This record gives sequence, structure tokens and C-alpha cells, in this order.
Amino acid sequence: MNPSEWRAYLVTQESRSAGRETAEIVETALDGGVDAVQIREKGRSARERYDLGRRLRELTADADVPLIVNDRVDLAAAVDADGVHLGQSDLPAAVARERLGEESIVGVSASTVPEARAAADAGADYLGVGAVYATDTKDVPAETNGVGPERVATIADAVDLPVVGIGGIDAGNAGAVAEAGAAGVAVVSAITAADDPRAAAAEIREVVGDER
Amino acid sequence: MNPSEWRAYLVTQESRSAGRETAEIVETALDGGVDAVQIREKGRSARERYDLGRRLRELTADADVPLIVNDRVDLAAAVDADGVHLGQSDLPAAVARERLGEESIVGVSASTVPEARAAADAGADYLGVGAVYATDTKDVPAETNGVGPERVATIADAVDLPVVGIGGIDAGNAGAVAEAGAAGVAVVSAITAADDPRAAAAEIREVVGDER
Repeated sequence: MNPSEWRAYLVTQESRSAGRETAEIVETALDGGVDAVQIREKGRSARERYDLGRRLRELTADADVPLIVNDRVDLAAAVDADGVHLGQSDLPAAVARERLGEESIVGVSASTVPEARAAADAGADYLGVGAVYATDTKDVPAETNGVGPERVATIADAVDLPVVGIGGIDAGNAGAVAEAGAAGVAVVSAITAADDPRAAAAEIREVVGDER
Repeated sequence: MNPSEWRAYLVTQESRSAGRETAEIVETALDGGVDAVQIREKGRSARERYDLGRRLRELTADADVPLIVNDRVDLAAAVDADGVHLGQSDLPAAVARERLGEESIVGVSASTVPEARAAADAGADYLGVGAVYATDTKDVPAETNGVGPERVATIADAVDLPVVGIGGIDAGNAGAVAEAGAAGVAVVSAITAADDPRAAAAEIREVVGDER
């Protein structure tokens, strides 16, 4: 499925999964209808991410859902993922494209129009725009930590690529992000830390789908 | 040049380079005769390591010296390095071999005989054994932080691969490491932090060569 059709995009982070394993969260969230899964797991070693990635590849393949690897092109290739998601300080998108080939999905984080345009020029398939809302910084005013749905709208208007909003998004604000022009939303805690990750995934997907 | 012929192997770390740039250190050390260069630079982003790696590729190619990338197989491929060096928590050596091909050099860190045997079975081309001497932990007794030249000897005897000693090695103790059976020594600070990296590289190379 093309990134333009991803409504709910789960980004894994075991440290925010209320003591549950990532594979368990992913299996449940797939059941709830997430359209794509990104293995992030910052802070874990490459070997641990490789082992987890192989497990998530099985689960996502069974569900016919794309698996994306954060940052590491080698890990994406090694676990036969569908693509990679690159931040501004990761390898350039053009390098990832060259290593992974035309069929792979290359996503790029962009929080400004120039970053978005550069990613488009480098051959990105979708943009992760954010942080839309303040995240992990609850003692700081939201306006200095979240670019807001307005930025999503600005970037979606400026660049001809699907935009996925990320950062502090849950079922309560996902509709506003979609309304601003995001094809979908990427979420971590709203699914990984939910009491019921399946219901959380289904609800976010429905809220976004209603706005598209 | 085959890793069995590497006497002095420079591992870069700008944070230990007395305020000088890594490219400057590498250029000077190549002039002093280092046989191989590994780009480590832990703590720097993939993008920064990519930019530096391309610069070091030029310098090492001019000197006809192999360039190895620590940890990241994708970065090694992207900068056209000669190989990769993997720790025990990095991607498995067999995965690196599959991604990089038979001609590439795959090195693996091993501090025990079982780790060394596993690396040999996985197709490693050389072993980095250490930390031979205590390093970065000067307030802790050396015996709990360094495996010593004895372990170098044990591993060199047990496995039919070139062994490179690493960890706290300088011109003063490099001879003991070579005498124990190491083909060469990998050093960071002994070159990167030296007043004269060229002289330091030349001295270490000579000390090791005298024991081989």
C-alpha cells in the first residue's frame, strides 16, 4: 500500500510500551488495523533491532502491512523491510534510495518547507512532519515544541508528497492533523502505551479516515 | 593489504583529538605510516559520519590504505569503504558479509575465545581483541578493565585469523601485544591525542613491526 493511503502508522518504542514487548504491541495493533509499522527503538543496539526487526517482518508480512526501519538502511535491507525512515541527521535520502532501489519506500522527516522540498528532490516517497504537538516536554509551552497542524498544511500544500503528521498525536487531535492535509498520522505512545493498543489503533485510523 | 599485515591501525575519535579535526589527524597519521584507518566517531550522527567518511575515503585512497567503518554497514557501502568493523552488539558478521560481498573486509570485536570462534565461523577477516589495557577508566584497577596480552595470546592461538589488539595501547606497550601474537594494534588516543600524530604512528608501527 502506498504511503498516501497510510492512515495510522505505528512507530515502535518498547520503552514507552508499559512493560509489554514490542512484538506483542505490534501484533495487537495490526489486528486493530494499522496501515504501516516503523521499527524505531532508539537506544537499543543494532543487534537487538535486527532480531526484533526479523520478528516484526514476520508479523507485518502476515498482515500484508509495510515495515519501515528508522535510520538504518543496512538494517532495513537485512530484515527485508519495505523501506527506511530518515531524519535530517541520518544518511541522505538519495544514498538510501541508491542502496535500497526504486521499489523501496524512503520516508524523510521534515519540519520546514525547505527540508520538505529537499526531501522531495532527493526522491522521498513520503514526509514525516512534526513534531505536530509538543511531546516528551510537558513542562515547556507547546508552541515552542510543536509545529502545529498549520505547518502540516503549509508543507502539504508546498510539496507533492504524502504527508504523515507525527509528534504528540492521539485519537483526540488526529482529526485536526488529517484535516490540515496529512494523509495519515504516525503515533508512538497513543498506541504503544494504550491499555488496549488494538482499540487505540482502530480509533485513530477511523478518525483520520473520516477526515480524508 | 590484508589485515594480517596491519601493524598500526588508527581508529578515529574527534572528541579525543585535542581540538583538531579528524581529517587532519588522519592525513598526518597516514604520512606516519598507519596501515589502516577505521572511522568510529561514536556520538556523531550518521550524516556527519557520512560526510567525514567521504573525506577519509579520499585521503586513504590517495595513500592506498584500507578504510573501515565502525558498526554501520550502510555507511561503509555509501562511502565505498573497504569494510566494516562490528562489535558484539552490532549487526551479525554474516549479515555484513552478505550485504558487502566477499571482497570486503569484515572485522569483529572479540574478548573471549567463544566470541572469537563465532566470528571466525561467521566469516570474519580479522578480530579486534580487547580492551587489552584499561582505557577511559583510570580510577578502576586495570585487571578488571583490560584482558591483557595473555588473552591476545589465547585467542591468537585458538583461532586462525589475524588478531589486532585494541584498548589502551601506545608505543610503550604495543610491543608486548605484538609479542603475544597480535598482527597489529589498533589505537585511538595514542595517535589522535598525540602532539605529533605522524611520529606517534611511525613509532607504534615500528615497535609492532620489530616484534613480528
